[in-house]
Amino acid sequence: MAFAVSGALTAMNKKMDPFGVLIIAFVTSVGGGTLRDVLIGRTPVGWMLNINYVYVILIGFALAMVFRKKLDRFRKSMFLFDTIGLGVFTLIGLEKGLEKGLEPSVCIILGTVTACFGGVIRDILCNEIPVIFRKEIYATICIIGGLFFFFLKSLEIPEDVLYLMTSMIIIAIRLMAVTFKWSLPTVDKN
Amino acid sequence: MAFAVSGALTAMNKKMDPFGVLIIAFVTSVGGGTLRDVLIGRTPVGWMLNINYVYVILIGFALAMVFRKKLDRFRKSMFLFDTIGLGVFTLIGLEKGLEKGLEPSVCIILGTVTACFGGVIRDILCNEIPVIFRKEIYATICIIGGLFFFFLKSLEIPEDVLYLMTSMIIIAIRLMAVTFKWSLPTVDKN
Amino acid sequence: MAFAVSGALTAMNKKMDPFGVLIIAFVTSVGGGTLRDVLIGRTPVGWMLNINYVYVILIGFALAMVFRKKLDRFRKSMFLFDTIGLGVFTLIGLEKGLEKGLEPSVCIILGTVTACFGGVIRDILCNEIPVIFRKEIYATICIIGGLFFFFLKSLEIPEDVLYLMTSMIIIAIRLMAVTFKWSLPTVDKN
Repeated sequence: MAFAVSGALTAMNKKMDPFGVLIIAFVTSVGGGTLRDVLIGRTPVGWMLNINYVYVILIGFALAMVFRKKLDRFRKSMFLFDTIGLGVFTLIGLEKGLEKGLEPSVCIILGTVTACFGGVIRDILCNEIPVIFRKEIYATICIIGGLFFFFLKSLEIPEDVLYLMTSMIIIAIRLMAVTFKWSLPTVDKN
Repeated sequence: MAFAVSGALTAMNKKMDPFGVLIIAFVTSVGGGTLRDVLIGRTPVGWMLNINYVYVILIGFALAMVFRKKLDRFRKSMFLFDTIGLGVFTLIGLEKGLEKGLEPSVCIILGTVTACFGGVIRDILCNEIPVIFRKEIYATICIIGGLFFFFLKSLEIPEDVLYLMTSMIIIAIRLMAVTFKWSLPTVDKN
Repeated sequence: MAFAVSGALTAMNKKMDPFGVLIIAFVTSVGGGTLRDVLIGRTPVGWMLNINYVYVILIGFALAMVFRKKLDRFRKSMFLFDTIGLGVFTLIGLEKGLEKGLEPSVCIILGTVTACFGGVIRDILCNEIPVIFRKEIYATICIIGGLFFFFLKSLEIPEDVLYLMTSMIIIAIRLMAVTFKWSLPTVDKN
């Protein structure tokens, strides 16, 4: 839902009509998981089989529309939800890759795709260079989380602890990254 | 074919070469159905199994190239074909969703994707914010048509009548929308 | 690998961060083949099942990062690799289409998608109108190569010779096209 609200807000800044806002909210929320499912051949894709996704996004969209003038006040709690989403989505992506018997490096890519590519598709639809390619270390955190996951896994830690610790790590790094304003330098050709 | 011509015209306004024009014409025509097929796992996607699609698009492309200076005269008949296309494509999308046993709300999304996302992909390839997110109520009509379809279906109307009435409704709303210049207001954050 | 380096260079010109550069390098290399696999339903897509792709791209990315100031010197050898890649990718695409029992015209489209759409996705992510729609005859060469392939095939030439000759033709036309600066004229509406 946090992803739906963030998508809706981006779309509003582009002066789209309510339908455009709804689509962008939808794509931001499920785009990453949809792309992952298409790439690994889990079709019909996830949200089609679980109608609750559609309802949660509609509620997120409605909230964003109604409270659009007051959302600045909730910036902090939204950021928290967004960060939890980052951890959970990365883990879901890793898990689906493992289910299909794919290599660890591919699973890490799938975790990153699940967590980050909703935002990439949102930025493409809004005609911008995706923000995670330019200044946010969002995706880098997913990759670090993924590497950590397989490191812990090789230690034969029980699965519950494994999942909990990985999501904790992702959330912790993200909070630190924002607090201390970490970012990767841009690469210049000269 | 109407979709192929409209795609070709957009591409020509962007000063693309003939190959670019052809690709844009192709994507505008089959992009929505292709995305739908990929999402529900009907692969190889539809147009690959029915070679006639490829030929119809090639003819539409050739017509647009030859008559490009005179197409303004046919604007009205093209608009009519485009509107019929809207109705037919929405119904095809709904039907494919039902075939896969998906929920009504997901079927409505699939109908909308089939009818509208060819244009969305066209606009992305032409580096523009998709027009249906900004001012056209195109997609809203598909959603209304889809809701109407399931409302009629719940009345246990025979299938032929159901399909005919839904496409009539979609075509009628579209004609009214254009005649009376209906559009959704843009959503402003402040 | 040549495709990975070319993707990395484009991304660097857009002042992306290293993660963005890596993604663009990745997408430029495997995007065409991934789109092809998704369209014909060969999932999980190719590079997920052969981990060497991931390593080769990582090496290409690392080389581009380290030698980014000196890559101009290698422009000629990079162009040669890129051209060989064009021939090989087109043939792989044709072959996967034939494996699925698709029509020749659809196979030619798949060959072109495999060879050219990595670059299209790269340009979309960098927020530009894809270069092959505007001035490069890249894709036209793939189509000519594909037509040639099916012409030779109809003569019942042995398969080895068939593949060798088709890739030779593609490479030869590409070299001539660049030497003599061939390009398609842009289509203007008036």
